[in-house]
Amino acid sequence: MDGQVEEQAKRRARGGSGGAGARRAARQNPTLVQMPAIERSLPPYEVLDEAGLDLIERNAEAILDEVGIGFKDYPRALDLWEQQPGARVDREAERVRFEPGMLREILKSTPQDYTQHARNPERSVHIGGKTTVFAPVYGPPFVSCLDKGRRYATIEDFNNFVKLSYMSPYLHHSGGTICEPCDIAVNKRHLDMIYAHLRYSDKPFMGSVTAPERAEDSIKMAKIVFGDEFVENNAVMTSLINCNSPMTLDGTMLGALDVYAQHNQACIVSPFILAGAMSPTTVTATLTQVLCEVLAGSAFAQLVRPGAPVIFGTFAANISMQTGAPTFGTPEPALVLYGAAQLARRYNMPFRSGGALCGSKSVDAQAAYETNATIIPAVMAGVNFMLHSAGWLEGGLVASYEKFILDCDQLGMMHTFAKGIDLSENAQGMDAIREVGPGGHFLGCAHTQANFKSAFYQSTTTDNGSFEQWEMEGKRDSAQRANAIWKHQLETYVAPPLDEDKDAALQAYMAERKASEADAFS
Amino acid sequence: MDGQVEEQAKRRARGGSGGAGARRAARQNPTLVQMPAIERSLPPYEVLDEAGLDLIERNAEAILDEVGIGFKDYPRALDLWEQQPGARVDREAERVRFEPGMLREILKSTPQDYTQHARNPERSVHIGGKTTVFAPVYGPPFVSCLDKGRRYATIEDFNNFVKLSYMSPYLHHSGGTICEPCDIAVNKRHLDMIYAHLRYSDKPFMGSVTAPERAEDSIKMAKIVFGDEFVENNAVMTSLINCNSPMTLDGTMLGALDVYAQHNQACIVSPFILAGAMSPTTVTATLTQVLCEVLAGSAFAQLVRPGAPVIFGTFAANISMQTGAPTFGTPEPALVLYGAAQLARRYNMPFRSGGALCGSKSVDAQAAYETNATIIPAVMAGVNFMLHSAGWLEGGLVASYEKFILDCDQLGMMHTFAKGIDLSENAQGMDAIREVGPGGHFLGCAHTQANFKSAFYQSTTTDNGSFEQWEMEGKRDSAQRANAIWKHQLETYVAPPLDEDKDAALQAYMAERKASEADAFS
Repeated sequence: MDGQVEEQAKRRARGGSGGAGARRAARQNPTLVQMPAIERSLPPYEVLDEAGLDLIERNAEAILDEVGIGFKDYPRALDLWEQQPGARVDREAERVRFEPGMLREILKSTPQDYTQHARNPERSVHIGGKTTVFAPVYGPPFVSCLDKGRRYATIEDFNNFVKLSYMSPYLHHSGGTICEPCDIAVNKRHLDMIYAHLRYSDKPFMGSVTAPERAEDSIKMAKIVFGDEFVENNAVMTSLINCNSPMTLDGTMLGALDVYAQHNQACIVSPFILAGAMSPTTVTATLTQVLCEVLAGSAFAQLVRPGAPVIFGTFAANISMQTGAPTFGTPEPALVLYGAAQLARRYNMPFRSGGALCGSKSVDAQAAYETNATIIPAVMAGVNFMLHSAGWLEGGLVASYEKFILDCDQLGMMHTFAKGIDLSENAQGMDAIREVGPGGHFLGCAHTQANFKSAFYQSTTTDNGSFEQWEMEGKRDSAQRANAIWKHQLETYVAPPLDEDKDAALQAYMAERKASEADAFS
Repeated sequence: MDGQVEEQAKRRARGGSGGAGARRAARQNPTLVQMPAIERSLPPYEVLDEAGLDLIERNAEAILDEVGIGFKDYPRALDLWEQQPGARVDREAERVRFEPGMLREILKSTPQDYTQHARNPERSVHIGGKTTVFAPVYGPPFVSCLDKGRRYATIEDFNNFVKLSYMSPYLHHSGGTICEPCDIAVNKRHLDMIYAHLRYSDKPFMGSVTAPERAEDSIKMAKIVFGDEFVENNAVMTSLINCNSPMTLDGTMLGALDVYAQHNQACIVSPFILAGAMSPTTVTATLTQVLCEVLAGSAFAQLVRPGAPVIFGTFAANISMQTGAPTFGTPEPALVLYGAAQLARRYNMPFRSGGALCGSKSVDAQAAYETNATIIPAVMAGVNFMLHSAGWLEGGLVASYEKFILDCDQLGMMHTFAKGIDLSENAQGMDAIREVGPGGHFLGCAHTQANFKSAFYQSTTTDNGSFEQWEMEGKRDSAQRANAIWKHQLETYVAPPLDEDKDAALQAYMAERKASEADAFS
């Protein structure tokens, strides 16, 4: 990237639109509309007062001091901790205990926000503060659609979801492992995934975290597109580091976190907790544990490179105490989410949580109730980075084509909601009320005519017509309507432009890396 | 009702449980569990600051002064307003204009909360303050179920929904016209509806508002059960007075409001607004109009009888500007709902809004997304009385048996959510975290064992098991599971006890009233 592009990237990162890149893309794909990341006008909702936050913080400090955190199979982490005054390292147990207050000190170097650059500067996103960025589902080994049912995901599915994410006006981010391309060797599929994000989209994306060398591959491929120097000086990836709850970071995740932090790339340090199994059954204890894990993992990143961007992550769900099954969209995780957002703000860190979570096996009412019982709290909590925003089904085992489309529509509504209430003279509409008066109607009045186009959020998936019309059209439910939409989108997809030399270099890098080792399938 | 029962009613109204009534009901129906109305621990969410509220109030005062409110086909209302200094009555236009500030003065006599008594004192509800009361859907001419599809509602359907409302632990109120019993004459069906609420449930209910004499019938039937003096001194009904938006109250609604206020019975004064048609397209203008309508209607009730309980109501939805169809669960009405709740608190009035609103024709994902996009904002806004909490489908044209069951489950979750975060020593769970430590799991630890039963909200409708199990069991979606649940509930329904003499007197009253006039079907 040259200096001018970089300058533009900085300017655009806070949600601007238009510019040369957009005009170029619009020529290629005239119907593509992209919304900038949400800049919330509404305040975050808070469920804990200062005393409650103090209590949880005090408890977390006590646990970090008495019990500590496991740093497993990664001796370099123990080495780094041994150099820190106040850290007590037990090398045999691979555990570190922390003097109260020391992690807060170390974390003072984390940026409270950062820009993640996209290869199209128009799509760069600001992460932190009042911004909310939506990224698609992450991790499912299966996909499903109404035509072919549930099946293992392939690279074709992966590419499809990258394209659908690119085409959604309401996803600001291309995500990472939208689904696992199970038809490609485990040790090579990350190459195809990074390639797809870079080739079929121009939105920001996530790097591979399943081994340190795959993180290195992600960085090298990013450098082909963004340039070496740009990548070393700017975040071009935000990658997902899940804690091994309770209170453990394993060698795989520590290795990836280490690589990304060294290169100044952003990571989400995210406890993945099903309360009742991986944390105590209560909200307060779960929040205490979340705080312990995030503080320790994020501080490790700061030891690697002070100032490396880190997001305070929280993935919260329960298990059913009756069956042991994970459950989603229930009230306790919503409370955890709100509380964790407050804790993240206390540490001046961007916050990740939420998503279109559900436990349902089909795109039915259960799926949708549960989804909005997570998306709405996440937005209202003030989430900065929402992973799993679209497509999540069956506890995250499945990426659903139809649910992806329906979830995006809900995300669209959140854009309108988060703007809050317009109090401008036009919005006051006094002349309209005066004009129409008691018993009249507003359809034809001047104010309605003037505000006609922008009046209300326009859903792309709902059917609000008459029963008779709906019956005549075959009684299609929302999943069936979404089925037609994603197919149409894939049919009309046009790839964003990518410099041919860069494309060739990416493909050459992939080919070389794939030839260098045998396929592994576990 | 004797003094002792009345005393107990007062004591129980704020959400107590147990007592002689509960024990008696439990003997009759051993599985019946009833949750008291929600007492919110969490603060309401606010979308407007003081300046925004001031602006809307100032604008409303200006509209009330310049444009005024229509009081149609009810000369007594104009008579009463003529006696009020500051009110300018235009008898020809049947319109009243109000000097700024005068309605606020008149409304000082409205109680900020009240108790609505149920015939079982255990079920009496406190309405106002931090309490949230859930009542079922109101008004649909149709019902639907998976077995018989969509069809006109009958009295059998009505009775069924009263029974299902009685059996739901999460509905605190029996509601009113849960569906229209279209097989009974228009001028007589209110008798059967009031009878059903009194006979098949012991929860509080709503009176008829479709004509003043039907309001009188409602009061007379209530007196048979509660006693004359008790009814004159206590609210035993909360009834729905819809404004004829924009800015009109018609003779039918004014007549019913007049009767109920005379008898000190509670009413909801509720603009029914589809923005774009019945109000301007903007949130701020809609809130301004809502405030005008509520202030004028509620003040009228205070002219009839100072101190008569009135709820600040708001039913908000949009029309699609593209098709004219009403839409539900979209972002703008959620903002109206939050803003209206703040206005209600400004006037120290209880607030009604929300509900399981949706535009979908089937119990699909659209229905559920839209429903939670209204229920969640309503609870978080601090709603006191939520009409349409369960069963609403197709823009309110249909009461769905299956959706009723699914909605009740979501209401259950709201009970848990609204409690907020428990910070007790048990909830802190420090010993659990110490006991389990890094890499362990919490399933078997002492804290989990001790909290096992109450740990998480237990959904009655979701399926969170494996795909394989679900497939083996026939891939039932949530509507199909709900179908089995409502049938089982109706099969196991046991009526709450009702004194035989009172039952006979109710039936005699109905018979006499029905014999006194010919059937009318419009």
